[in-house]
Amino acid sequence: MSDIINTPYTGGQSYRRPDTDERRRLLIARFARIRAVTKALAAGLTPEDCMLQSMPDASPVKWHLAHTTWFFEVFVLERADPEYVPFDRQYRYLFNSYYNAIGEQYPRPQRGLLSRPSLAEVNSYRRSIDEQVLCGISGGRWPAPLLDTIEIGLHHEQQHQELILTDIKHHFWKNPALPVYRPLPVPPPRPAPALRWLAFAGGRTSIGAATGSFSYDNERPRHDVLASPFELASRLVTNGEYTEFIEDGGYERPELWLSDGWALRQKKRWRTPLYWLYESSARAKSSFTTHKVFTLGGIRSPNANEPVCHISYFEADAYARWCKCRLPTEYEWEHMAAHSGRAGSGAFLEDGLLHPCVAKATESGVAQMLGDAWEWTCSAYLPYPGFRTSMDTALGEYNGKFMINQMVLRGGSCATSRDHVRPSYRNFFLPHSRWQFSGIRLAR
Amino acid sequence: MSDIINTPYTGGQSYRRPDTDERRRLLIARFARIRAVTKALAAGLTPEDCMLQSMPDASPVKWHLAHTTWFFEVFVLERADPEYVPFDRQYRYLFNSYYNAIGEQYPRPQRGLLSRPSLAEVNSYRRSIDEQVLCGISGGRWPAPLLDTIEIGLHHEQQHQELILTDIKHHFWKNPALPVYRPLPVPPPRPAPALRWLAFAGGRTSIGAATGSFSYDNERPRHDVLASPFELASRLVTNGEYTEFIEDGGYERPELWLSDGWALRQKKRWRTPLYWLYESSARAKSSFTTHKVFTLGGIRSPNANEPVCHISYFEADAYARWCKCRLPTEYEWEHMAAHSGRAGSGAFLEDGLLHPCVAKATESGVAQMLGDAWEWTCSAYLPYPGFRTSMDTALGEYNGKFMINQMVLRGGSCATSRDHVRPSYRNFFLPHSRWQFSGIRLAR
Amino acid sequence: MSDIINTPYTGGQSYRRPDTDERRRLLIARFARIRAVTKALAAGLTPEDCMLQSMPDASPVKWHLAHTTWFFEVFVLERADPEYVPFDRQYRYLFNSYYNAIGEQYPRPQRGLLSRPSLAEVNSYRRSIDEQVLCGISGGRWPAPLLDTIEIGLHHEQQHQELILTDIKHHFWKNPALPVYRPLPVPPPRPAPALRWLAFAGGRTSIGAATGSFSYDNERPRHDVLASPFELASRLVTNGEYTEFIEDGGYERPELWLSDGWALRQKKRWRTPLYWLYESSARAKSSFTTHKVFTLGGIRSPNANEPVCHISYFEADAYARWCKCRLPTEYEWEHMAAHSGRAGSGAFLEDGLLHPCVAKATESGVAQMLGDAWEWTCSAYLPYPGFRTSMDTALGEYNGKFMINQMVLRGGSCATSRDHVRPSYRNFFLPHSRWQFSGIRLAR
Amino acid sequence: MSDIINTPYTGGQSYRRPDTDERRRLLIARFARIRAVTKALAAGLTPEDCMLQSMPDASPVKWHLAHTTWFFEVFVLERADPEYVPFDRQYRYLFNSYYNAIGEQYPRPQRGLLSRPSLAEVNSYRRSIDEQVLCGISGGRWPAPLLDTIEIGLHHEQQHQELILTDIKHHFWKNPALPVYRPLPVPPPRPAPALRWLAFAGGRTSIGAATGSFSYDNERPRHDVLASPFELASRLVTNGEYTEFIEDGGYERPELWLSDGWALRQKKRWRTPLYWLYESSARAKSSFTTHKVFTLGGIRSPNANEPVCHISYFEADAYARWCKCRLPTEYEWEHMAAHSGRAGSGAFLEDGLLHPCVAKATESGVAQMLGDAWEWTCSAYLPYPGFRTSMDTALGEYNGKFMINQMVLRGGSCATSRDHVRPSYRNFFLPHSRWQFSGIRLAR
Repeated sequence: MSDIINTPYTGGQSYRRPDTDERRRLLIARFARIRAVTKALAAGLTPEDCMLQSMPDASPVKWHLAHTTWFFEVFVLERADPEYVPFDRQYRYLFNSYYNAIGEQYPRPQRGLLSRPSLAEVNSYRRSIDEQVLCGISGGRWPAPLLDTIEIGLHHEQQHQELILTDIKHHFWKNPALPVYRPLPVPPPRPAPALRWLAFAGGRTSIGAATGSFSYDNERPRHDVLASPFELASRLVTNGEYTEFIEDGGYERPELWLSDGWALRQKKRWRTPLYWLYESSARAKSSFTTHKVFTLGGIRSPNANEPVCHISYFEADAYARWCKCRLPTEYEWEHMAAHSGRAGSGAFLEDGLLHPCVAKATESGVAQMLGDAWEWTCSAYLPYPGFRTSMDTALGEYNGKFMINQMVLRGGSCATSRDHVRPSYRNFFLPHSRWQFSGIRLAR
Repeated sequence: MSDIINTPYTGGQSYRRPDTDERRRLLIARFARIRAVTKALAAGLTPEDCMLQSMPDASPVKWHLAHTTWFFEVFVLERADPEYVPFDRQYRYLFNSYYNAIGEQYPRPQRGLLSRPSLAEVNSYRRSIDEQVLCGISGGRWPAPLLDTIEIGLHHEQQHQELILTDIKHHFWKNPALPVYRPLPVPPPRPAPALRWLAFAGGRTSIGAATGSFSYDNERPRHDVLASPFELASRLVTNGEYTEFIEDGGYERPELWLSDGWALRQKKRWRTPLYWLYESSARAKSSFTTHKVFTLGGIRSPNANEPVCHISYFEADAYARWCKCRLPTEYEWEHMAAHSGRAGSGAFLEDGLLHPCVAKATESGVAQMLGDAWEWTCSAYLPYPGFRTSMDTALGEYNGKFMINQMVLRGGSCATSRDHVRPSYRNFFLPHSRWQFSGIRLAR
Repeated sequence: MSDIINTPYTGGQSYRRPDTDERRRLLIARFARIRAVTKALAAGLTPEDCMLQSMPDASPVKWHLAHTTWFFEVFVLERADPEYVPFDRQYRYLFNSYYNAIGEQYPRPQRGLLSRPSLAEVNSYRRSIDEQVLCGISGGRWPAPLLDTIEIGLHHEQQHQELILTDIKHHFWKNPALPVYRPLPVPPPRPAPALRWLAFAGGRTSIGAATGSFSYDNERPRHDVLASPFELASRLVTNGEYTEFIEDGGYERPELWLSDGWALRQKKRWRTPLYWLYESSARAKSSFTTHKVFTLGGIRSPNANEPVCHISYFEADAYARWCKCRLPTEYEWEHMAAHSGRAGSGAFLEDGLLHPCVAKATESGVAQMLGDAWEWTCSAYLPYPGFRTSMDTALGEYNGKFMINQMVLRGGSCATSRDHVRPSYRNFFLPHSRWQFSGIRLAR
Repeated sequence: MSDIINTPYTGGQSYRRPDTDERRRLLIARFARIRAVTKALAAGLTPEDCMLQSMPDASPVKWHLAHTTWFFEVFVLERADPEYVPFDRQYRYLFNSYYNAIGEQYPRPQRGLLSRPSLAEVNSYRRSIDEQVLCGISGGRWPAPLLDTIEIGLHHEQQHQELILTDIKHHFWKNPALPVYRPLPVPPPRPAPALRWLAFAGGRTSIGAATGSFSYDNERPRHDVLASPFELASRLVTNGEYTEFIEDGGYERPELWLSDGWALRQKKRWRTPLYWLYESSARAKSSFTTHKVFTLGGIRSPNANEPVCHISYFEADAYARWCKCRLPTEYEWEHMAAHSGRAGSGAFLEDGLLHPCVAKATESGVAQMLGDAWEWTCSAYLPYPGFRTSMDTALGEYNGKFMINQMVLRGGSCATSRDHVRPSYRNFFLPHSRWQFSGIRLAR
């Protein structure tokens, strides 16, 4: 997901927690916990590592640390106190991602040119804002909407936690030494369960976030859609299956690709997913049996049973066409996810693997609906019928402003927090993006 | 619509005309008529005019004349006769738009560099292929699928007729003399009818092409969707209404725009629709009351009652947001079009105005559903559920290959043939495109 | 030479012909003859051919026809008569190459987008201006400076005659049919004379145009330079000799190239001079024995004895380094040319071959100093000591404005008029340019 | 000067120091001193600062620290000992600037993406190589050519010392906080001496490095040239004088500029030298009286008496044309410098001002020939007659490979070591470069 913030839905059916002591207590705990997770993700990285920016799409870790803090400063502290004295006046500009209502923004492609403020100063910034926010919540005088905004800020922070991981992975990829983010456990090998097809007879089904718990406005309003009969694969496509596609000339056959995808594949000379290393001198076929894979834990041998990931929409779509299937719509996916529960979840951020895992065999047969890898759907990222942006506040200024040219991904990944994702959650990226943990679930 | 060809649907419910004498007779007449229209559109243009290519998206008129002929040569004559001797071997390469199965293609941005073959030679090419096709049809030995392909070729040709007009308009725009394509009648002024809102209570509605008459495969299969209650504007947005948006700072307020649209507007310095001329020295406000408009008939005074056109999706979307409405989905649009009939049509190619007209007051209130200007919908161009491409033939090789990053437009324009368009017809362009006759119908 | 105009030198030693009847008579004859040559060069080209623009550097033939005429209209007719009514007001803008003092210029890369005015109109323009200029000269009332300007205009026109040929060659090169400009005689084969070294003992020598006949200001003032002892090759490097360089890996060895040249060779994938055709499937070595060459007379078999041409400065320099020589300075070249006379001239425009010829054996041993191919020198195009631009007139506004980043070429080519070139003549192009008839004479 | 290394001249008249104990003793001292200066320049910068890369032309400080060390490792230690074990195998690739003979190079624009090795590791690298080199020299077994290479390596290091300063200045410029490199003394104000013209009657003069002391090969061989009579300004052009040019519309008048320079000025919207800050809202005229200047010591008020610097060749040339002068040739400059001695030197690196100073009044009248700011000459960077590259060694592989498209600058700057520069020293940059301390001395 690019850097979007979504406001709580302000319509009649909106979700609003009452402003009670209990709420405050829970919010304090949650704030402390989530902010600490972000800090922990940057632990072990040097100030130099935290400054890397390998492409405009990916930001430096230090910038993520500052921007998530800026969010609380600008949208909470500034609003709570008209006399608020900013930590540093320039931060308003430096760490504004894209909020025109807040003011001009420091150019995104130059985020890697900020040696100052230093990482140490950014960490001070975090501590200072944390203190003030915690103090504000516990003071008990802040109105409910401010607490709502803090809640949004925490969801926002969780999104950036995932970006910290996907971005540092890309930054390190540009270093020929291929640095290790941190040593990571590798689960013992096991076979992937056979792929099964889960059928739905079609008909009316409800889509979107229900009231009663937190959701972004792009998940609302909940509404009915009509689905044709369809089948969904029980698990994600594996590296082994994807290798068959490659060995069958999948990257050489234009008829399998969308026109824009083929042009891109030509220009970028894609021959495998991102982060695969292979001997370029080897013959085409055998190269894929001998490749290595770059992970946050360093270079690993490939695991044919793990889900393929770091592929673009174009590759997911070409693969699906190659095996005479298609990608699911986001409605089909959500219907299935809503009815299969968390039984078949894969790895989340909390599992500490930071790499997708081999699917687990489950009773229901459904695996990896949540976790492991984001799943490209064939749905464009567009507003739901009746979608309402809240144009009156800076925070909500841009609710829908990314709803063009992007495709929806569902389900969360091994870098997503378990409590951040849900069946109605809509992630979105440009179809050429490959640096997220993005994989494939087939439909037909 | 970019240069797409769609095959007849080959599924069970496909449309297949019987191969009778009557069919042949009608096809001959239709072939002769449509091919003659293309020729007539190029009449009055010099060989030099026909060579112009002002941007990669827009092709030279000569190339259109040749490519539409190439279609019949490659997909009909070559298939009808294994011994077929091509008119010129190089044409297979030069005039192939994007069919990888046919072979390599001459680079699109260089189409304007073909002084040879000359316009005269391309006209000979047309005559030669026409003769052979007419001879083949009347010979009575060609199988039905070949006649089906001819029919597709005629629809294909009608698409290129529209492109000839929109492309030459753009080519001439780059000449400071702003040449006149041809003198065109200007309808007498009349007021636009007041905008009314046509309501639909919501519910299940059928979308897509019915069997029984020609359609492209992207209109199929017909299927049901669930619509929320909605209202559609009775007519297109006028220049006058759009000018209010401009004068209210519509091009200066980022909060009205999609993020990508705003970036584009900044980069291209858009301040009005394409083809508006205004005094740059004049003050912002008054400039729009004194502008002129470039048309295929030359420079004209602006007509506040005519539909605004030559706007991108981004501008249509920003305008809709500005007046607290939205663009319709393609389903909403089709539902309304299917239920309002041709009563409220605007100008078509056959009317010879080549410019959108002021809406006519109709009994039902619906105006301009077909004709005048293509209408941006907020639907991405994606396959219908159950969409099938025919990957076994070159002709159908690419049925779905443009289904990414484009938005659907509906309804046809003043440059579309009356018998080419229909309620289920799906046109599509990239959201930044402005050189088509593209306008706005509001929804809410 | 890019489109430069040089004014007559206005300093004390300047050249000024007296304004006599005889001068007028000669000028009329010369005007008529040179203008007719230009027209003849365009004969046989269709209006479509004359519109081609294959790259920003190369202009359409029609533009050359108009611009050379514009020169006489703006710098002669307008100045001769304050009441002068222009042929077409827009031409002042359309056909202004780069004279800021005259006003804005139509963008150079868009010159190919001018289908209007048509070739026929441009020809009328030529006739009209010709008539008025001839009438003005014969009227006898025009002051001498105006006649001087006409003379410059004729030299200017001769430069554009060469550009017409080099540009159309490049335009046609982009057409896969590789059209023939016109059938051209091919001289009977003969061996190239053995390369000899012509020595100069060094010392003081005079460089630059002498007074007494026409020259551009960039050839002045004549001044002395000090030369070290040097030797110059008796003739140009041949295709055969250049092929040895290629076969020895000349295009694969970075140590032979200037750094910028190597980067360019990598980017553009140069493997031979421009206009060589070779079988890409063939093995590297043999490919150069089987190549063909594209000429203005069509595709020809290669002639190992002809001078290599259509090479950039970078290739000339790399070749020279490969054979442990170097390129001459412009001073060395001019010294030799001034002392060898026209004895050893090669082909000029008037010879009608439009392709460089095999060197003729001469008594002195010097061949091809003038004609056949421009010779890259290792001198940057910079002002001579005491160079004076005439900043007070539009015509002279830019005398020195191209004196940066270009290298000097000397000697003229098979597309240069015999009476246009002279030993002191300085041509100049960017070091990457390859579309001129540019070759190599070695020095050491 | 870009990153060039020049080998000792290998011809007969080459400079070779005898390999004596005394030489070794001096070399050890010099090595220790120069390496320490580099380290001192980086002191005070954080590891984050040392990673900045604001444009491809400018490298991170850390990269400079490593590359200068790499030089000694690859060209000295590797050659001294065939069994040499590299400090880190990857460094050979990472810190190779452009030596194809050494192998592939890590892409220059990505030098800012190397968080690893860390600054601490690079400092270890420096210490390790330093130890080995010092040990090698004092061991007394290294042959004279190796000691020669060390000497070159030290001159090379001094060049990079200057680049460290000019690069960090540019890197910091991209940070809106405009960080201070270090607090710097500001000399007390004083007026600039009146500009005087120093005349030379013309005639034969010797140019180039004499034997007997170190020089780069591009300064050799020493040879005679013929100079026309000329005059040189006694000091550099000041900010105050340059401001008159600006206020007279210098940046708005195309007739003052070279054609390429004008195009660049338009594209980049240059209105002042680099590093001038001015109130954009202020009126054109007064803006230059109120501007501030960014220096390595932070933001300062402008000093009208200091030399103007951070200008491109195009600006220097336009300024000279504006005041009806010209830039000197490198011969004129060297002649004057060789005859005026160091009497009139300006600030060097050792003075610790890191900013050009107001000229001192001198007896001879000549000021700032060496130091303060590099002086653009109107000479292209080309080989001297008889120039010899040493193509047999990697070190000398590229002696001449930058001799294209660059202009010569002379004299050194406030960031150049006093003992690094000399009258025959040739620096060179592309004409658009502005991030060096480059200024103007007029000639006529």
